Amino acid sequence: MAGQFERRRQEGDDQDRLTCRDCGFIAYENPKVVVGSVVAVPGAGPGAGPDAVLLCRRAIEPRRGFWTLPAGYLEMHETVEEGARREAWEEARARIETEGVLAVYSIARLGQVQVMFRARLAEPGFEAGPESLEVRAFAWDDIPWDEIAFPTVHWALNAWREGAGFPSPAVLNPPEDLRGIRPLPGHVLAGDAG
Amino acid sequence: MAGQFERRRQEGDDQDRLTCRDCGFIAYENPKVVVGSVVAVPGAGPGAGPDAVLLCRRAIEPRRGFWTLPAGYLEMHETVEEGARREAWEEARARIETEGVLAVYSIARLGQVQVMFRARLAEPGFEAGPESLEVRAFAWDDIPWDEIAFPTVHWALNAWREGAGFPSPAVLNPPEDLRGIRPLPGHVLAGDAG
Repeated sequence: MAGQFERRRQEGDDQDRLTCRDCGFIAYENPKVVVGSVVAVPGAGPGAGPDAVLLCRRAIEPRRGFWTLPAGYLEMHETVEEGARREAWEEARARIETEGVLAVYSIARLGQVQVMFRARLAEPGFEAGPESLEVRAFAWDDIPWDEIAFPTVHWALNAWREGAGFPSPAVLNPPEDLRGIRPLPGHVLAGDAG
Repeated sequence: MAGQFERRRQEGDDQDRLTCRDCGFIAYENPKVVVGSVVAVPGAGPGAGPDAVLLCRRAIEPRRGFWTLPAGYLEMHETVEEGARREAWEEARARIETEGVLAVYSIARLGQVQVMFRARLAEPGFEAGPESLEVRAFAWDDIPWDEIAFPTVHWALNAWREGAGFPSPAVLNPPEDLRGIRPLPGHVLAGDAG
């Protein structure tokens, strides 16, 4: 696959781009968006504060067997909140309600932006989805810090614990303005820069 | 260009993808990240509050001639803050300091996520870059509301005015942990999901 692509500089561009040798198609590489959440689970864990947090043990590489937050790539035509809810369902079979943005992390070396939410269970219950070996609610003191999959999981858990982030509605789309949220009929390809 | 690509469903996938008829290369379409800022300019504008805001009149389509915030697509291998600073330079020849995330907007129909910063001029002076017809600091009451380019510019200006957002350091990468910020030597392609 992709054998006919090479890195080539276009006139007027300042970077090489993956370009098809045959037809000249340019596969632009853009940063990808990961959406995820720290999901508070009420009442779990002995000796803990009021809320435990949901962690998933990864069933897939990279970092199989290590613990992570329910998170994954945002899909086209969904909002960041919708993506975070979908990932919580796919990985932890949890129905969640997002309460606000907890953090925005950049993983520049990978070309990745992570939008992490503060969230809570919208209905009781969770279990491992297909990409998880197991899903558990950990009291803060029981979090397996030595078996955490990624640095951003550490960061987000600490930000959650410190009460960071802002549940102000102004930081997400205004709820009364649906222009950003409702997809148009059919697919409209990205191309409009703000 | 791209004449040899067609939309095709892969086994096990739930969406059609742009696929090269010859070599099978899949050009995944992912949401794109726009970074921008509301830049406070001290002391400008008669009868205004203490700060005016920087707006750029677009020299390019779409919405040529309308006013927008300095904003544009995040590039590979830069953090969201770096991208916002770069765009402020490119479009408004302004050196800015970001103070925190103001808002995270989803434009689902375009597959776009906008990370907007609260920022201020790091040094005096600004002027039109190549993509702007003119750049001005507007006192709040002088903002040309009928000539604003995009809904998210309205949203971000209102969020800024309402004091939304959070300058808490926890919502961006922890400053003492450089793993997300420093690019590795050479290019590492995205592929690692959090």
